Amino acid sequence: MRYFFFLFAILFSVSELFAEKPAGEAIISAETMACIGCHETYTPGIVADWRTSRHSKTTPGLGMKKPALERRISASQVDPALKDTAVGCYECHSRNPEAHKDNFEHFGSMINVVVSPKDCATCHPVEESQYTPSKKGNALLNLEKNPVYHTLYSTILGVKTATDTGLSTEEPSDFTRQDACFACHGTEVEAKGLKEIDTELGKIKVPDLTNWPNMGVGRVNPDGSRGACTACHPRHSFSIEIARKPYTCAQCHLQPDVPAWDVYAESKHGAILFSKSEEWDFTDVPWRPGKDFLAPTCSTCHNSLLLGPDGEPLAQRSHDFGARLWVRIFGLPYSHPQPKQGNTTIIKNKDGLPLPTTFAGEPASEYLIDEAEQTRREDLMKAVCHGCHNRDWVDMHFEKFANTVKETDRMTLAATKLLLTAWEEKLADEKNPFDEGLEQDWVKQWLFNATTARYASAMTGAPDYVAFKYGFWELTNNLQKMKESIEAKRKLKGLK
Amino acid sequence: MRYFFFLFAILFSVSELFAEKPAGEAIISAETMACIGCHETYTPGIVADWRTSRHSKTTPGLGMKKPALERRISASQVDPALKDTAVGCYECHSRNPEAHKDNFEHFGSMINVVVSPKDCATCHPVEESQYTPSKKGNALLNLEKNPVYHTLYSTILGVKTATDTGLSTEEPSDFTRQDACFACHGTEVEAKGLKEIDTELGKIKVPDLTNWPNMGVGRVNPDGSRGACTACHPRHSFSIEIARKPYTCAQCHLQPDVPAWDVYAESKHGAILFSKSEEWDFTDVPWRPGKDFLAPTCSTCHNSLLLGPDGEPLAQRSHDFGARLWVRIFGLPYSHPQPKQGNTTIIKNKDGLPLPTTFAGEPASEYLIDEAEQTRREDLMKAVCHGCHNRDWVDMHFEKFANTVKETDRMTLAATKLLLTAWEEKLADEKNPFDEGLEQDWVKQWLFNATTARYASAMTGAPDYVAFKYGFWELTNNLQKMKESIEAKRKLKGLK
Amino acid sequence: MRYFFFLFAILFSVSELFAEKPAGEAIISAETMACIGCHETYTPGIVADWRTSRHSKTTPGLGMKKPALERRISASQVDPALKDTAVGCYECHSRNPEAHKDNFEHFGSMINVVVSPKDCATCHPVEESQYTPSKKGNALLNLEKNPVYHTLYSTILGVKTATDTGLSTEEPSDFTRQDACFACHGTEVEAKGLKEIDTELGKIKVPDLTNWPNMGVGRVNPDGSRGACTACHPRHSFSIEIARKPYTCAQCHLQPDVPAWDVYAESKHGAILFSKSEEWDFTDVPWRPGKDFLAPTCSTCHNSLLLGPDGEPLAQRSHDFGARLWVRIFGLPYSHPQPKQGNTTIIKNKDGLPLPTTFAGEPASEYLIDEAEQTRREDLMKAVCHGCHNRDWVDMHFEKFANTVKETDRMTLAATKLLLTAWEEKLADEKNPFDEGLEQDWVKQWLFNATTARYASAMTGAPDYVAFKYGFWELTNNLQKMKESIEAKRKLKGLK
Repeated sequence: MRYFFFLFAILFSVSELFAEKPAGEAIISAETMACIGCHETYTPGIVADWRTSRHSKTTPGLGMKKPALERRISASQVDPALKDTAVGCYECHSRNPEAHKDNFEHFGSMINVVVSPKDCATCHPVEESQYTPSKKGNALLNLEKNPVYHTLYSTILGVKTATDTGLSTEEPSDFTRQDACFACHGTEVEAKGLKEIDTELGKIKVPDLTNWPNMGVGRVNPDGSRGACTACHPRHSFSIEIARKPYTCAQCHLQPDVPAWDVYAESKHGAILFSKSEEWDFTDVPWRPGKDFLAPTCSTCHNSLLLGPDGEPLAQRSHDFGARLWVRIFGLPYSHPQPKQGNTTIIKNKDGLPLPTTFAGEPASEYLIDEAEQTRREDLMKAVCHGCHNRDWVDMHFEKFANTVKETDRMTLAATKLLLTAWEEKLADEKNPFDEGLEQDWVKQWLFNATTARYASAMTGAPDYVAFKYGFWELTNNLQKMKESIEAKRKLKGLK
Repeated sequence: MRYFFFLFAILFSVSELFAEKPAGEAIISAETMACIGCHETYTPGIVADWRTSRHSKTTPGLGMKKPALERRISASQVDPALKDTAVGCYECHSRNPEAHKDNFEHFGSMINVVVSPKDCATCHPVEESQYTPSKKGNALLNLEKNPVYHTLYSTILGVKTATDTGLSTEEPSDFTRQDACFACHGTEVEAKGLKEIDTELGKIKVPDLTNWPNMGVGRVNPDGSRGACTACHPRHSFSIEIARKPYTCAQCHLQPDVPAWDVYAESKHGAILFSKSEEWDFTDVPWRPGKDFLAPTCSTCHNSLLLGPDGEPLAQRSHDFGARLWVRIFGLPYSHPQPKQGNTTIIKNKDGLPLPTTFAGEPASEYLIDEAEQTRREDLMKAVCHGCHNRDWVDMHFEKFANTVKETDRMTLAATKLLLTAWEEKLADEKNPFDEGLEQDWVKQWLFNATTARYASAMTGAPDYVAFKYGFWELTNNLQKMKESIEAKRKLKGLK
Repeated sequence: MRYFFFLFAILFSVSELFAEKPAGEAIISAETMACIGCHETYTPGIVADWRTSRHSKTTPGLGMKKPALERRISASQVDPALKDTAVGCYECHSRNPEAHKDNFEHFGSMINVVVSPKDCATCHPVEESQYTPSKKGNALLNLEKNPVYHTLYSTILGVKTATDTGLSTEEPSDFTRQDACFACHGTEVEAKGLKEIDTELGKIKVPDLTNWPNMGVGRVNPDGSRGACTACHPRHSFSIEIARKPYTCAQCHLQPDVPAWDVYAESKHGAILFSKSEEWDFTDVPWRPGKDFLAPTCSTCHNSLLLGPDGEPLAQRSHDFGARLWVRIFGLPYSHPQPKQGNTTIIKNKDGLPLPTTFAGEPASEYLIDEAEQTRREDLMKAVCHGCHNRDWVDMHFEKFANTVKETDRMTLAATKLLLTAWEEKLADEKNPFDEGLEQDWVKQWLFNATTARYASAMTGAPDYVAFKYGFWELTNNLQKMKESIEAKRKLKGLK
């Protein structure tokens, strides 16, 4: 390919004289040049990655000049000092120093280690304002501050020791939290003063950060903000292409608990993507179904600005990734209407627990969106589907999906009833609802099996995930296993 | 890339004046123009997809002029009304209206919603005649009309309720059938009159179709035909490239029950494809090993027309995907010679059951191909392998495979014997052979574990699937689990 | 794409007259021409594959002229008869005939069927000298000759028969060994004289090889050498591109036991590769982070020669794939420092067993590298990470990893204690430590679950493999299952 570009360089060298100054020649600030001066040697990959980015080749000022639908920048005004230079190291790593507890003196410049959504909001304020209050922006808090979920993850992640009477469990370590659930949900990155480290240039002082590195979507940053834009726009290319390709979402939205990627990869949409996406355009803004691509990716359906053939948006961009979602198919333990707020720690169900449904499946409706809002959001999603599929096709698809949601909830209810029976008969101890075999089978029923069947039904065709892989086969098998286990426990109860 | 095409447009604009009329300028019929007139606005993706297709750029008449081996169209004569226009919306969606119960009046035209293999046979009769009687063409009937398989899928897919005495199972809903097994096997799409739906253009009437949408390979269509060509040639590009790439087959041929894709993805063939296929030609007809590609995909080995270096076919095209298969490695419950007919509901084994083998493993030979036919088909497959591998390599590979088939059947037999023991001792109830824990373990043994090891052995190298993933580890582990479960049940039997 | 090349052919045809003789015109020896004469017809794919190779287009002599860092050939002298011809069929398949028990007369030439690392060492001696003594070079012997591992694989792979008293296990067949563990580890390929086979050219005699075909990394070859270069540089293109892409390593380094690929595919590195690698250069030597690629593959971190921006190597090439590894995270049954030698059959722990750790987790230190060597190797790996990541990021990543190694070892220790209890109380029989349910659960704990969590922690981000997929969820669940199984066995013990 390089030869082709070389050819072009020659063929177009004349015409370029008359062209507008190419974006690639945006002026780089002196401060950023200083950063690059060292980092091109010490972390060359990161600098090379940035050089491939649009940030390195354009300026906020040029970005703001584009027609509304083509804009990649939502600010209408940007600090004049930033407006006409490339978006380089210093521009991003020096924002809002007063808020950044990780701000430190680094070879003469005051630098933040962690660039936060609040910093990105300098040019992308709409995106930040959608993201921060969303479920993603609350992903750390919703897991950490909900006592039920806290018990669940602590039971799983704590190191166990075999004792004379059984197993004892420690509190999970920060490191394992960071390695597991909070790699996706985000960690609390605090700056605890400075520490000295050895480098090629001798000892230097850098902020002593907790739970770092992390790029989880709900990360709490040293400036108090929440989120990590690099979770999806990695690392210094901040690529819209990478964010639009499904491999990015695939890092967290995976079997067994959130099998969006696995289901997509088996679907017709996935098959077409894998076969043809080399020919598509993942960088165009707005994104045009039919012209730029022929099958959707995650971001097509969930958050991208899509343009119809008449020049009108088929769907609006949103960085609240729940904006087009009506039902929450991730069972807790049952499906339910999407929560009204991204912060779900405020929810209380009729059992008095911080869960969106009761044990019997009743939704905590006052915290959840109502039917009108559900319909409104479902219609947003259907509008995307209509880009390729006719009305009846789409309606019948979602009717089928609604049925699968109901049936899988009933399969969870059956498991819950078996567990309640076991608790009543003292065959299991409800104190910690997650630490015994029967309880773990129950968790599998809603967290893995029912959820998976719903994802597979929603995302247009991954039948093996409805049938055999965590789907109805496991839903059935697991119920039978729970039932037989209860029967055996009953018989064994009298024996010592 | 677009810039390159632009460049070409300029460079070749002169020479094109002298060229043959390019295929891309096939005349589009007035009827199809009318379809596009609206649908380019209302379902733009589908129209864009069609515009990328060969159907939009050529005509049946041009297709029939090609030399025999290069033809993509098997008809020798086509209705003169169709011969010289592009194959557009109307050309396909208006065939055989008398047979189509889904034919309806749509803004002035009589349209079929569902295009069936019989319609495609207008230009592709050989393909249809191979496909319809094959196992794929019978995929719905073979699952639905076989009482044993019917019981199996109903036991899995039916919603369960926890009752005082255990679990009760409902008949599976149509929606869940459609979402699970029948998404691949195909549904019965019947037209039950018309229904009114809301559209951008107001209320319109469309056929009221059952079990729709569906693209399963054995779909029963409203014209009475069987199959769905779009299962592999999706949606309106009807792409041979997509059908030849393994991602298409991967939608249904998946672990745990038919792990062809998973096995391929781990194989050397897969590794080479993932590394190099960007450079290959997936559209050439005939397909030339070595020239067009350097490692096979599913369709290379199973159905494509392959050309040898001497200009003679290495293998003939077939849309009976069993044409090069001798042994059926999908255990029911044991491997067996391929059935003589695609309709397997006619099979009766010596146990009196509609299965190709008895419980003890004896094949129902009168319904299965004989040794001579097995050898003939194995030789067809070997001829493909010989495109790259020498004779001894291939022979020894298949000798190893034959041994794995035998050994895994013995591992199934051991599980069957344990189950028979349990039934005899009343530790399990044989009435429904699929609904108890022990029985479900037995199903895993043949449906998942033995089958997987055979696929991995057949498809040249996915050793983890022979060893740990549903392979011998699970075959062994599962047997041991069944054995220990029987022992525990024996001891518990006396207790209440 | 072909049109572009065609365009270039025209555009550059003049300039090429003045260019150096292109590498593509290396002279092919008469012997190789003879091979091609037939094999282009009989195995066209293999010849076409070779024609795409560098071997077909250059000569050892040209290869040796390159500057040191750009050399792909490590010999400083090559047999004059080979120096100035392309590296063709005969050049490789005729080396060292005296050592090759598979040397035979084939249409007038003396040919070896199997090309071994010793043959490749003609031009690539450094690679062979690193590979042969490494763990990979010993992969067959280390599995076969270690009585513990031998028992493990035999217990898994042997065919079972249900008997009146339980299950009996046969010794595994050669074919199943070849299909499973030894597909990766390598087989013993011996030449047992000649045999007659049928070909298009009539009956011919070829060597009668055992356990063939096989491309396992520790294969014992008919010339007595060990290894198979084609395991990673397949089949006749010997491509560095394929070896550098992760799909190659993915054939063997897979879940559940060695989930390097699975973990990589979920990581940010993987997401970037899948999204962008079409634009990267996988053939450049030396390989330049930032310039040639923007995210690492397996070979980047583990063995490639990497060039820093200052023209100095960031990392040296090695074909000992453990050269940059300090801790062995593949639990046997615990993690431990890397062994000093690739041949691990010499190890004896304090329990007297040929394992690198005792049952209680104590390492067999005299056979394992010391702390200084561990630090040295960890620093080699960190140097690669520093290509993109700053010092603190890397240090904290590895600190977290070290903690996960410790915690998962403790989760294995808990399982070992439960098993020891069961053995003491005669609830299981320790004679074969791998053949009962409880023992198989214990094997899962270290072979699948603990190992997986460590791989996921090491390879920068596959949180689901730390959390739910063989990670802490399974580590926890499995321990609980073992505990409850022991309790049930205790209660059942008295019953008959």
